[in-house]
Amino acid sequence: MKTDSLLKKYYQQLKVLRAFESTGAALSWDRETWMPIGASADRGEVLAVLAGFHHDLATDKKFVALVDELFEQRENLDPIARRSVTVVKKDLDKSVKLPKEFVEETQEITNASHHAWIEAKQTNNFALFQPHLEKVVENRKKYAALLDPSANAYDVLLDSYEEGLTTAYLQPLLAELEDGITELLPKVLKAQASRKDLVNPLDQHELDIVKLQTFIKDMLSQIGFDWSRGQMGSVEHPFEISISPNDVRLNTHYEKKQHSFTLTGMVHELGHGLYEQNGDPKYIEAGLHHGVSLGIHESQSRLLENFIGRSIEFWQYFLPQLQKHFSQLKSATPEQVSLALNKVSPSFIRTEADEVTYNLHIILRFELEQEIIHGRLAIKDLPESWRAKMKDLLGVEPTTDKEGVLQDVHWSWGDFGYFPTYTLGNLNAAQLWNRFTKAHPNWSVEVAQGNFTSYFHWFKEHVWQHGSFYTPQELMEKATGEKTKAEYLIQYLNKKYL
Amino acid sequence: MKTDSLLKKYYQQLKVLRAFESTGAALSWDRETWMPIGASADRGEVLAVLAGFHHDLATDKKFVALVDELFEQRENLDPIARRSVTVVKKDLDKSVKLPKEFVEETQEITNASHHAWIEAKQTNNFALFQPHLEKVVENRKKYAALLDPSANAYDVLLDSYEEGLTTAYLQPLLAELEDGITELLPKVLKAQASRKDLVNPLDQHELDIVKLQTFIKDMLSQIGFDWSRGQMGSVEHPFEISISPNDVRLNTHYEKKQHSFTLTGMVHELGHGLYEQNGDPKYIEAGLHHGVSLGIHESQSRLLENFIGRSIEFWQYFLPQLQKHFSQLKSATPEQVSLALNKVSPSFIRTEADEVTYNLHIILRFELEQEIIHGRLAIKDLPESWRAKMKDLLGVEPTTDKEGVLQDVHWSWGDFGYFPTYTLGNLNAAQLWNRFTKAHPNWSVEVAQGNFTSYFHWFKEHVWQHGSFYTPQELMEKATGEKTKAEYLIQYLNKKYL
Repeated sequence: MKTDSLLKKYYQQLKVLRAFESTGAALSWDRETWMPIGASADRGEVLAVLAGFHHDLATDKKFVALVDELFEQRENLDPIARRSVTVVKKDLDKSVKLPKEFVEETQEITNASHHAWIEAKQTNNFALFQPHLEKVVENRKKYAALLDPSANAYDVLLDSYEEGLTTAYLQPLLAELEDGITELLPKVLKAQASRKDLVNPLDQHELDIVKLQTFIKDMLSQIGFDWSRGQMGSVEHPFEISISPNDVRLNTHYEKKQHSFTLTGMVHELGHGLYEQNGDPKYIEAGLHHGVSLGIHESQSRLLENFIGRSIEFWQYFLPQLQKHFSQLKSATPEQVSLALNKVSPSFIRTEADEVTYNLHIILRFELEQEIIHGRLAIKDLPESWRAKMKDLLGVEPTTDKEGVLQDVHWSWGDFGYFPTYTLGNLNAAQLWNRFTKAHPNWSVEVAQGNFTSYFHWFKEHVWQHGSFYTPQELMEKATGEKTKAEYLIQYLNKKYL
Repeated sequence: MKTDSLLKKYYQQLKVLRAFESTGAALSWDRETWMPIGASADRGEVLAVLAGFHHDLATDKKFVALVDELFEQRENLDPIARRSVTVVKKDLDKSVKLPKEFVEETQEITNASHHAWIEAKQTNNFALFQPHLEKVVENRKKYAALLDPSANAYDVLLDSYEEGLTTAYLQPLLAELEDGITELLPKVLKAQASRKDLVNPLDQHELDIVKLQTFIKDMLSQIGFDWSRGQMGSVEHPFEISISPNDVRLNTHYEKKQHSFTLTGMVHELGHGLYEQNGDPKYIEAGLHHGVSLGIHESQSRLLENFIGRSIEFWQYFLPQLQKHFSQLKSATPEQVSLALNKVSPSFIRTEADEVTYNLHIILRFELEQEIIHGRLAIKDLPESWRAKMKDLLGVEPTTDKEGVLQDVHWSWGDFGYFPTYTLGNLNAAQLWNRFTKAHPNWSVEVAQGNFTSYFHWFKEHVWQHGSFYTPQELMEKATGEKTKAEYLIQYLNKKYL
């Protein structure tokens, strides 16, 4: 068959697969927002049926043969088709190497492990989780061996979350970052000593949620979100989900008084949302419209949340608008809000960590994950190693496992190799930010005036429009002239916090 | 193969089909509530892909053979399986008789017709709609001929909305009802002459929607809705939709001031919702859990909305609760609210009609539909016939087609034979109500005290629990001892309005 007609068939099958993916996303969003609790089992059954169809379609022999044939002819394909076929071929090769029994076994092991983790965390009892985590680790080793028996097992895991990521690349990067932060941290703590009891004026009052949502919607519009192609939702844990490029949903969590968490959470999700809304439509057909990787996606959310959304200038513009809705906040100043949002203080919980100490939490996990996957650390000794590393890296030591090794959900689902993408996001953010601020040195003046045009256009041009057309590191090189480095984040943190 | 293993395979396939149906319902609900407008085309594509899979699965040759084999063995099946196979077989027989080209043609004709209708209604220009409606009518005749060339074409259409419904059955029923109403109406109008300018005290103030939703949620709980298996939504046109028996969504429309519409609308949808929430779970596997027909479903919504929800006793209980949320309403009395909700006045628009004149709107449509389908009335003469019949039946004549023949969406979608199910719903409601009130003569005292136990249990026992296990008329006979008759509605209206 001719390449053109092969490609037509291939795109047709991608469209069908995309319909199932879009459906899965819509049903997942609904589950987290509006689905009544009593429908959990029914929804589970529906999602399982749809996932089965998706799997059968994606691994259908005819489709596999089609992809193989196109892959062989890849030099004759236009660049978009070539990248599409390469990405799909990589996924298919994985599916081929993983026997069905292994996939089912993985599902069973991680389901049981996740449930054990919930109970272990609730009761602060690591022993409940330990045998399950041991099985999960064995399963992850097996997974890596099945995919590439000759490779470094942890590298195989890393690559499954971030295309092309390796230990050899990460190690020096994170070592440099660790040095930078441990040098900076005591200075910042000394400088911020007087701010110890600082409370955010946004967290002092109960605010009407509907009014708060009205403000948020308006704020996000002004930064560049297109509500005719998006929606917001109220959820337990904030997240962004794309049902289609024209249906991007930003979800945050509302508390009675912790409104700063709601607001920064929404600005974070907006970063993800702008990336998803602004891919070039020419990539849709080839399935390359969505953001390319966790590490690039997280750079967009962290940059908007931390670099812009916690600045004084941001609140110089938006606080007066918020005060118009809520007279209770009238005595708050942008300086107070921004200072409180940038308080640095080593603590136990990663998700509550400030910008400076956050990456130390990730470095801890990166080191422990390697020890575990390479069999140098027994799971039974993990809580102790965790505490020791916390003391070493952050100078604080949790007294309970709940605040220590049991705090994150990731390992319970078998997500070893995922955590580094968070720090990668921070590194990418700082490196892109360095370029952006060089191109637009007036950014802070603009933001203080509510002018997000430079921000929007620079990131659309250099990141968002490209979807998944480039690999993460190609994108970084194209946008900044170099691969991800540590120095920009260290520079940024030094400049901001000293 | 043995019956048992055939049945197991059959139920397995029903489960898969149900997953697609549930997905379709969830995506439709989302489209009407939360989906951003910009995602319309994407959602349309997704729904088309899913509908294609559902169609292929439902008409899959192996499945058809399986159903045929089970149908032949139906005497050996348990009663639930027998009813299930009978219903599915009937649907499959239809699919077999309708060629794919005809189905596609129907889609095209009705899509074009629906769009023409929107424009025609907006611009009050029947001529725009006329050629499309002509095609729709030809298409419906063809549909009836394909399904059963020897039957009365209008009967075939009726049966596709209400199992077993025929002109011969409906004609005398509606004639009797017409007589009853035309005798009653002038008396009611005379008795209500003083109420001409009566306004509903619930429609005098702008009320906070969030507070109103809180009240509605609480009101519906007290009547018997289980919110752990349901949700509410805000929509343009109120409707109920079941995503699963444990996920029933009630949707109403909010206006700045027309709160009585919102409240009666929600009580109406609650009637549908209670029916869907309270089917016996033993019917789920066989796909017989949902309400059996439009005529029975509508009886449950109309009964709760009109017979209970517009009574003084209902508002004696709920108005004080509403007043607790809204001090603006403190001078309203249950009598004022109930009187306003039961004002009778012949008008042009069916959906705004009162309980007495409503069925005259349906009788008009029933008569015109027969004329049209049997070729005795040309579409070009339809507006004129409409006006003449309005004058004849209701004593009022619309000056525009917008308020006349163009008011309803149904014909634009090809739904000829649908309207009678609305009146059937009213007749069934009155007949069931007659039985219920004989069993529970104290119902009004109970309702005034907020006690809905008798109501809930009687309807659960006699209607809701049975799902689709009985045909509509079997259900009516089982619940009331006789098939649907006209006298109970006439009695009810006479008693209530005189």
